[in-house]
Amino acid sequence: MAFVFGGTSVFLGKPVNVDSRHAHACSHGSGVRLGRLRSSSVRMVGMEVKPDKGSGSSAVELSKIGLVGLAVMGQNLALNIAEKGFSISVFNRSSSKTDDAVARAQGELEDPALFSGFKDMKEFVESIERPRSIIMLVKAGAPVDATIEALVPLLEEGDMIIDGGNEWFENTERRSEALSKKGIMYMGMGVSGGEEGARFGPSLMPGGPEEAWQSVAPILKKIAAQVDDGPCVFHIGPGGAGNYVKMIHNGIEYGDMQLIGEAYDVLRTIGGLTPDQLADVFTEWNKGDLKSFLIEITANIMAIKDDVAGDGSVLVEKVLDKTGAKGTGMWTMEEAVRRGVPSPTIASSLDARYLSSLKEERVAAEEILKGPTPAITSEQKALVEDVRQALYASKVCSYAQGMNLIKQTGVENNWDLNLGEIARIWKGGCIIRAQFLDRIKEAYGRNPELSSLLIDEQFAKELESAQEGWRRVVSLTVSEGITAPAFSASLSYYDSYRRGRLPSSQLVQSQRDYFGAHTYKRLDTDKVYHTRWSSDGVTEVIGS
Amino acid sequence: MAFVFGGTSVFLGKPVNVDSRHAHACSHGSGVRLGRLRSSSVRMVGMEVKPDKGSGSSAVELSKIGLVGLAVMGQNLALNIAEKGFSISVFNRSSSKTDDAVARAQGELEDPALFSGFKDMKEFVESIERPRSIIMLVKAGAPVDATIEALVPLLEEGDMIIDGGNEWFENTERRSEALSKKGIMYMGMGVSGGEEGARFGPSLMPGGPEEAWQSVAPILKKIAAQVDDGPCVFHIGPGGAGNYVKMIHNGIEYGDMQLIGEAYDVLRTIGGLTPDQLADVFTEWNKGDLKSFLIEITANIMAIKDDVAGDGSVLVEKVLDKTGAKGTGMWTMEEAVRRGVPSPTIASSLDARYLSSLKEERVAAEEILKGPTPAITSEQKALVEDVRQALYASKVCSYAQGMNLIKQTGVENNWDLNLGEIARIWKGGCIIRAQFLDRIKEAYGRNPELSSLLIDEQFAKELESAQEGWRRVVSLTVSEGITAPAFSASLSYYDSYRRGRLPSSQLVQSQRDYFGAHTYKRLDTDKVYHTRWSSDGVTEVIGS
Repeated sequence: MAFVFGGTSVFLGKPVNVDSRHAHACSHGSGVRLGRLRSSSVRMVGMEVKPDKGSGSSAVELSKIGLVGLAVMGQNLALNIAEKGFSISVFNRSSSKTDDAVARAQGELEDPALFSGFKDMKEFVESIERPRSIIMLVKAGAPVDATIEALVPLLEEGDMIIDGGNEWFENTERRSEALSKKGIMYMGMGVSGGEEGARFGPSLMPGGPEEAWQSVAPILKKIAAQVDDGPCVFHIGPGGAGNYVKMIHNGIEYGDMQLIGEAYDVLRTIGGLTPDQLADVFTEWNKGDLKSFLIEITANIMAIKDDVAGDGSVLVEKVLDKTGAKGTGMWTMEEAVRRGVPSPTIASSLDARYLSSLKEERVAAEEILKGPTPAITSEQKALVEDVRQALYASKVCSYAQGMNLIKQTGVENNWDLNLGEIARIWKGGCIIRAQFLDRIKEAYGRNPELSSLLIDEQFAKELESAQEGWRRVVSLTVSEGITAPAFSASLSYYDSYRRGRLPSSQLVQSQRDYFGAHTYKRLDTDKVYHTRWSSDGVTEVIGS
Repeated sequence: MAFVFGGTSVFLGKPVNVDSRHAHACSHGSGVRLGRLRSSSVRMVGMEVKPDKGSGSSAVELSKIGLVGLAVMGQNLALNIAEKGFSISVFNRSSSKTDDAVARAQGELEDPALFSGFKDMKEFVESIERPRSIIMLVKAGAPVDATIEALVPLLEEGDMIIDGGNEWFENTERRSEALSKKGIMYMGMGVSGGEEGARFGPSLMPGGPEEAWQSVAPILKKIAAQVDDGPCVFHIGPGGAGNYVKMIHNGIEYGDMQLIGEAYDVLRTIGGLTPDQLADVFTEWNKGDLKSFLIEITANIMAIKDDVAGDGSVLVEKVLDKTGAKGTGMWTMEEAVRRGVPSPTIASSLDARYLSSLKEERVAAEEILKGPTPAITSEQKALVEDVRQALYASKVCSYAQGMNLIKQTGVENNWDLNLGEIARIWKGGCIIRAQFLDRIKEAYGRNPELSSLLIDEQFAKELESAQEGWRRVVSLTVSEGITAPAFSASLSYYDSYRRGRLPSSQLVQSQRDYFGAHTYKRLDTDKVYHTRWSSDGVTEVIGS
């Protein structure tokens, strides 16, 4: 491992003094600054070894890829890359993080020589094989722009930057356009799976030029989570498509979490299940249709005792009911609203977070606003099954909303998306990973143009059989006065979508024509009408 | 009335030839282009007559105010202004609309001499008393910018432009800033009430500099709708505050309309009420707590027969169930999402419009997705009362959401808003006008800092007594499979808000700490914790 400390480069396990001025000077001839002693442990998986063109030396080797930004996500992704046999150079603005990363590489990697830390950005860039691929994992927004600004003067035509953060997709498109004028390729890549995923196999959602994808695909395919039908990565599409799909993944994640939260609440508050019973229920559910990472961790959470109070109660019941939100759920809903894609399950999940943050108001309101006192059911076993049905059916609605938002934006932006593949790469690595996603992949396999997952033959059948329990659960929460906003919004969505004629909309459109002369069409003809509702009630044909 | 046709100015009722070149030439000395013969019928209500400074002539009179943009809204507002005794000059880009406006003035005004149409913008501007006040009623967005660009070279320091369109509030702030550098004042004024309101008394929501407000207040107070406690106008606040409040008015309007639509649907589909019975119910409701313009027109709509098919059925049942949306409802929800103000009633009303537009998909889905067949209730009378309660309680939730969004944005933008006054000026003129708004005014009178209308003593009492019927209606729609998304989202909102501890949020925050190390607080202390949920379950204090 080459680790520059001031002017001293330390090869991991093999400390060597390098005169940085000399390195700098000779670079003009060779383009080589800091190399890595060729080590037999360097595995070149899936990539051809391209010797550095200018050096003429076979004694040094450039890194396959670079990574900037060494917070935990960045460190973990870099370690993952090196562990898969790709040599990597890493850099961080504040050098203590670089020290941390290098120390971890020494401890965690079988071949730490693949991992090179740099404290000078120029040396970092020059240590990477051309055309260079550099992954950024810095905070979205201004820090990304600042990093690009620092990198670009050091790059050459044909080099590539990959932003692995949760970036707003239009920022990626703006940067991509600006950089393409300089001959630099740019990708926005969604990385899901949190710190754990980054280290051991995330779900990757890269968007950008096809050529850029081809160049890094061998690495990305190796570092991604692996599922039965391949690695959890594919080329999502051009421009900001990768960021967009990651954003919707997070919106769906909001939905999944809220729905599980409501299942927990109903079972605890109306079902009266003990934490042990709840752990058993979630463990059991994790063997069936609901099998997923979030159900699995919920089962685990139910078993964790409160070691702070040490009173034998479970920890989850002591956690403050104020949930944070980091932006992508909000963006998802802004997009849904702006593009006119009804997404009530995701909307109510976001609202639930907002309502949770009003803790002080809620505590005050509890004293003022009365409601029923929830009674514990005597039909515990039946309730558990009903809640399972409600959770599953609501989850189908939530994914239908998220996929439709992706679909619509893909069409509007000419991204030519493959919805089935998107579902497939979420099967592993990411937070929403679930068996369930195989069914979504299959549904789009049956019909890539499916207008909604709800009407896929498999899901339609499942919804039909789930709906009785689903309706019972929602009715119960309504009459008992406990809240299941996402269950109930999902059911409303289902019932609205399966209704060929919506009387409320007939009235609303009539009102709009009444007070605003907005005109209307009729069920039986395609002409456009206006009625003088407030005077003689006479109808005129306005157009067709 | 001065009406320029080519180079000929026609004084309404008093045709006079004016050499436009002469008018142009003499303007350099006097600043006067086209005047109005002083007429004894000109009533100067609430405004001092300021003779034109430069002319030295008392034989001509300049208009009190100008108006650009003569679509129906503009025409109507101009006629309203003239009818209240203020002389007005009007202009439109395409001159045929000016002709229309002038023709209408001749027919509709007692003193048509107060109404002057122009086909040259320079002559239009120069016909207005300085400092000039010019109202724009053109399409929001680029047309507003284009109009400003055309006007500004003709204006002088101290003049003022008032945009009366449904403009995005930040556009107003941008323009205001740009124009203030030229010494021109700018206001964004919400105008509600549709064409009818504009003509006979709208609700006006002007935002901008206090000085600008003072200058036009005498006119605005006269042309606004008049209610028991004054005219439906006051100075909302600086910058884009007027546009913002108008936008939320429209979001609330979406909610009101959807809620009434759901009441209609439940009563028709489950209640089995005939259109005649429905007309009676809405007429009856319009005598009580629900008394409002929208309930009134709904009663009228129920009575309008279908004269196109002529089969004796009611028209509303023939109207295509596809509802349009014009932008402000969408903006309201974008704002709610962005600012973290939970607004599920308004959200579900917007979603209902989006779902309605998927008519073809819904018709197809109806064949595929099964559900219960709604049964007609035998308890019709009880249902009517329950629906009334559901409608009223949901309406309270909807207004609480809208007012909270106004409140939060007001605080964030230092607008120093008066929520009670905002409710008051909605009592007349606008689409949501309702008796109910008096209670909101009173609630903010009791406590201007009220965190939510729900906990106001009066509303809390009403919600408590309404909730049984409300819960029954929502349960019924859930079990019968018909949709009342706004009723049910409102009830969820109420039940979440009055819950001091939300178990679902406790779980969600635990999950976030589990997979993302997002940390959490506890109910019993204020420290920040992280638990190693997936390994040894040990909890660490991270901070406080």
